[in-house]
Amino acid sequence: MRIVVLAGGVGGARMADGFARAVLPEDLTVIVNTGDDFEWHGLLVCPDLDTVMYTLAGIANPETGWGIQGDTWGALEMLGRYGGETWFRIGDRDLATHVYRTFLLRQGLRLSEVTARLCRALGVRAAIWPMSDEPVRTIVETEEGPLPFQEYFVRRGCQPRVRSFRWEGLEGARLSPEARAALEGADLVVIAPSNPYVSIGPILALPGVRELLQDRTVVAVSPIIGGQALKGPAAKMMAELGEAPSALGVARCYRSFLDGFVLDRADAALAPAVEAMGIRPLVTDIVILDPSARARLAEEILRWVAS
Amino acid sequence: MRIVVLAGGVGGARMADGFARAVLPEDLTVIVNTGDDFEWHGLLVCPDLDTVMYTLAGIANPETGWGIQGDTWGALEMLGRYGGETWFRIGDRDLATHVYRTFLLRQGLRLSEVTARLCRALGVRAAIWPMSDEPVRTIVETEEGPLPFQEYFVRRGCQPRVRSFRWEGLEGARLSPEARAALEGADLVVIAPSNPYVSIGPILALPGVRELLQDRTVVAVSPIIGGQALKGPAAKMMAELGEAPSALGVARCYRSFLDGFVLDRADAALAPAVEAMGIRPLVTDIVILDPSARARLAEEILRWVAS
Repeated sequence: MRIVVLAGGVGGARMADGFARAVLPEDLTVIVNTGDDFEWHGLLVCPDLDTVMYTLAGIANPETGWGIQGDTWGALEMLGRYGGETWFRIGDRDLATHVYRTFLLRQGLRLSEVTARLCRALGVRAAIWPMSDEPVRTIVETEEGPLPFQEYFVRRGCQPRVRSFRWEGLEGARLSPEARAALEGADLVVIAPSNPYVSIGPILALPGVRELLQDRTVVAVSPIIGGQALKGPAAKMMAELGEAPSALGVARCYRSFLDGFVLDRADAALAPAVEAMGIRPLVTDIVILDPSARARLAEEILRWVAS
Repeated sequence: MRIVVLAGGVGGARMADGFARAVLPEDLTVIVNTGDDFEWHGLLVCPDLDTVMYTLAGIANPETGWGIQGDTWGALEMLGRYGGETWFRIGDRDLATHVYRTFLLRQGLRLSEVTARLCRALGVRAAIWPMSDEPVRTIVETEEGPLPFQEYFVRRGCQPRVRSFRWEGLEGARLSPEARAALEGADLVVIAPSNPYVSIGPILALPGVRELLQDRTVVAVSPIIGGQALKGPAAKMMAELGEAPSALGVARCYRSFLDGFVLDRADAALAPAVEAMGIRPLVTDIVILDPSARARLAEEILRWVAS
């Protein structure tokens, strides 16, 4: 059974890690959002790609979910001394990733090829692909004007009220060939518990992706439990966009192609409403902080889909 | 009295530091070799510039002479994991310098402007200028063929026998405007105890520099004591080029514009031969490992020139 996980940052990485523990590596592909990529002192930083890569390599910082365990901060401190911007925290080992990626991209490799090389070096055996080789940049339209995603997310701590989103570069971007091939061959597509607007939204916005998903078995795991996001601003964004923050709102985002939806026990009362949308609900524990919980949820989803 | 020091790497940095301790910062300019600059994973590394800058900022690693005291190696270790080249050892804080410099250069600043910004941030008050804003790259012609300088110096540990040197980019390069202005206004030019071929040689090879020096008071400090280089391959290079490795050979390199030459007491016997070339000799202690010895030598040179 060939599984494709659509993933954003930390939640996506944890769900991908669950499937990496539950299936053979050759049966797993993770397609990762690149809408929150950005240039940092001339280097391309891909936070979601790296979070998934570090998590599957077993070197992610378990406290933060992002960055590398035991990383140091010498370069960032020095950059600050030089007057560089330090609001985005990049550790020394993490910096090597951005230096080497930027170096390989400047040699003419595609982001997909670079990602494959980095993953191989770190011993990651499942396939991780950026959603696109062309740059797509999420712009958050806020009450204070447009903000590039990381300015909104990290620098401003998700403070400004959100009005809408747009994606710079989307007209010129295509699903990467590797990601497309994986989706076309997928027996099951799992949308990870990631932010539906800024993590999964960019992937769905690429031409042809929604159509591809309509032809496949697609299940999503809710990033919202009891009206709260497990991590990040999903619930706050829903509220600001005039939607009640609830797992149901997430299911609604994916309604046109969704076959199954996984909710937390705390949201069991929403299951009938999911069913009423023509989507099969699975109610279970969806908090997957530790690795064993991740594997357990992945296995449970696989049994449920098979049944 | 306006002093200009022509400097290469560690020896040049130590002599520059001596003058920085002996004169007012506004009276000191250091013009630094950039022939050993190179691209490292897409970043511009300027080893001599940085050694002078870190030394004058008081953050140089006193054991090695290069790099930053107490630096860590997380990025280099990670780069090695990715398959990057790690024979040139760049610490994490040091890496920030190369990232930020490359970032500013890509924004269109000249290397001189970037260097001034980095120096200001580190509290260096004397002026440090690269010899040129245009790239000049030292190629060492060896018995094994041509080698870019750092390949010869670091990767091969100066092992291959040297036949000659050439400088890529020299035809398009000029003395930087700031360096030219400093030389034109100099009351005294001091050639630091740096390698005459690969540290001072590139500076002298720039159009007009030898002519400028002929009109000024120029003294050089020998990098050779008792036939041995204090650091680096100067003596080995001299022997391979068919010259007896001695302080006298260094004086000969600078003969056409040199007014004074500073030798170690161990080479006192060479003083008459220096004088016979029409160059005034100063015999003293020229080992300047520690800061007090550096200041003492600078003060001694200033008194000697004034007399």
